[in-house]
Amino acid sequence: VIVYGRNAVREALRGRRRVERVWATKNASSEPWLAAGGRPVELGTSQEIERRCGSAEHQGVCAEVSEFIYTDPDELLGSPAGGLIVVLDQVQDPQNLGAICRTAECAGAAGVVIGERRSAQVTPAVCKASAGAVEHLPVVRVRNVADFLTAAKQAGHWCYGADAQAERRYDEPSYDQNPVLVLGSEGRGLRPRVAGQCDELVSIPLRGRIESLSVSAAAAILIYGLTGQDTSVTVPPGR
Amino acid sequence: VIVYGRNAVREALRGRRRVERVWATKNASSEPWLAAGGRPVELGTSQEIERRCGSAEHQGVCAEVSEFIYTDPDELLGSPAGGLIVVLDQVQDPQNLGAICRTAECAGAAGVVIGERRSAQVTPAVCKASAGAVEHLPVVRVRNVADFLTAAKQAGHWCYGADAQAERRYDEPSYDQNPVLVLGSEGRGLRPRVAGQCDELVSIPLRGRIESLSVSAAAAILIYGLTGQDTSVTVPPGR
Repeated sequence: VIVYGRNAVREALRGRRRVERVWATKNASSEPWLAAGGRPVELGTSQEIERRCGSAEHQGVCAEVSEFIYTDPDELLGSPAGGLIVVLDQVQDPQNLGAICRTAECAGAAGVVIGERRSAQVTPAVCKASAGAVEHLPVVRVRNVADFLTAAKQAGHWCYGADAQAERRYDEPSYDQNPVLVLGSEGRGLRPRVAGQCDELVSIPLRGRIESLSVSAAAAILIYGLTGQDTSVTVPPGR
Repeated sequence: VIVYGRNAVREALRGRRRVERVWATKNASSEPWLAAGGRPVELGTSQEIERRCGSAEHQGVCAEVSEFIYTDPDELLGSPAGGLIVVLDQVQDPQNLGAICRTAECAGAAGVVIGERRSAQVTPAVCKASAGAVEHLPVVRVRNVADFLTAAKQAGHWCYGADAQAERRYDEPSYDQNPVLVLGSEGRGLRPRVAGQCDELVSIPLRGRIESLSVSAAAAILIYGLTGQDTSVTVPPGR
């Protein structure tokens, strides 16, 4: 696949995927992050790069890389590192999936879980929208989101679902150490069976006249709301 | 001007602007919010609507409305209602301006302030990206952002600037009742003179490998971080 855009290519170069070829315009090829990489860069015009990646939003650079590597659900649930798991129930817009992955990676989340169907997958557009965050973030693809939540609960995780109608505000609970946050699709929210698998539903207070936050803004508020309570400072061993 | 998109048109119909004409496809015209409005709707094909509004993202509906009405800075600073003021220093992407306005409106912010130059203005693309939130949210346009902060401080507001390098975490301060939150541009952050006018700089902790949050995600985290501390319940008089 061909990833494109400055951040998406830069993070692919330092991520887990095999990088086959890199193309850049003359201008982009002299940017320090690319020039200093020591990797051969093939020069091309902006039009040639657009033709290769199929998008005008390439910012002068694209790269041929191996397929995105999804993480196994059991690996995510069994990870000794712990941390927040973000589960997306039918989020369909690549921009939203990318934006949520970017925020999750910045917050140090353990990973993001998406469904196989009626959900955006990790395409080059999502790599771009995530500013390359997906190269460093475990993304798990599951057949059935509700079943994943069942497995997460069996593995000891506590599942919080975002629901605009929930009486409990998102900043009320004292969150578990390794919580699972479940977000529904743009417009429709969580499906009943998915909501039913959550241990607790929480809402973000709306104080204006419009009906809803975007799913990526709601994700940002909740991801930091759930991870921000951990005020402990991690001190490396031996210091 | 021609606003387009379901939410943008719906909120324009119940907002402050004069609405001259509304066009919709046959499908869109039967949506309850539009059909029940009692307003004459002119039918057109999707192509005709795209030609009128100049965007393919119209979702079957557009409307001719009067120019966006910016709010006077003194009106915002002198408002007895108070509340959070969000100041954007050279945010240039219409998607980001729209997303931030949507979040600000949902959080019940008093208003958003933008600069006249090198900043996205409230165009129809921003109306769409804000899901119509700008129709209900005071937006102020100022010649000089740093000077606005000086005026805000003189009016008794405390100004918090978002700065990725700040030592103080955003969730440490006990925020003022009517804070001003200042956010810098995509990629470059606050300009020195603007940062210099802030009373306090705060950062959002980054725990991943990529360099930064998007400005709209950072805005969501900070807007709710600053307004969420008010846990008082407003009880209407007489109850």
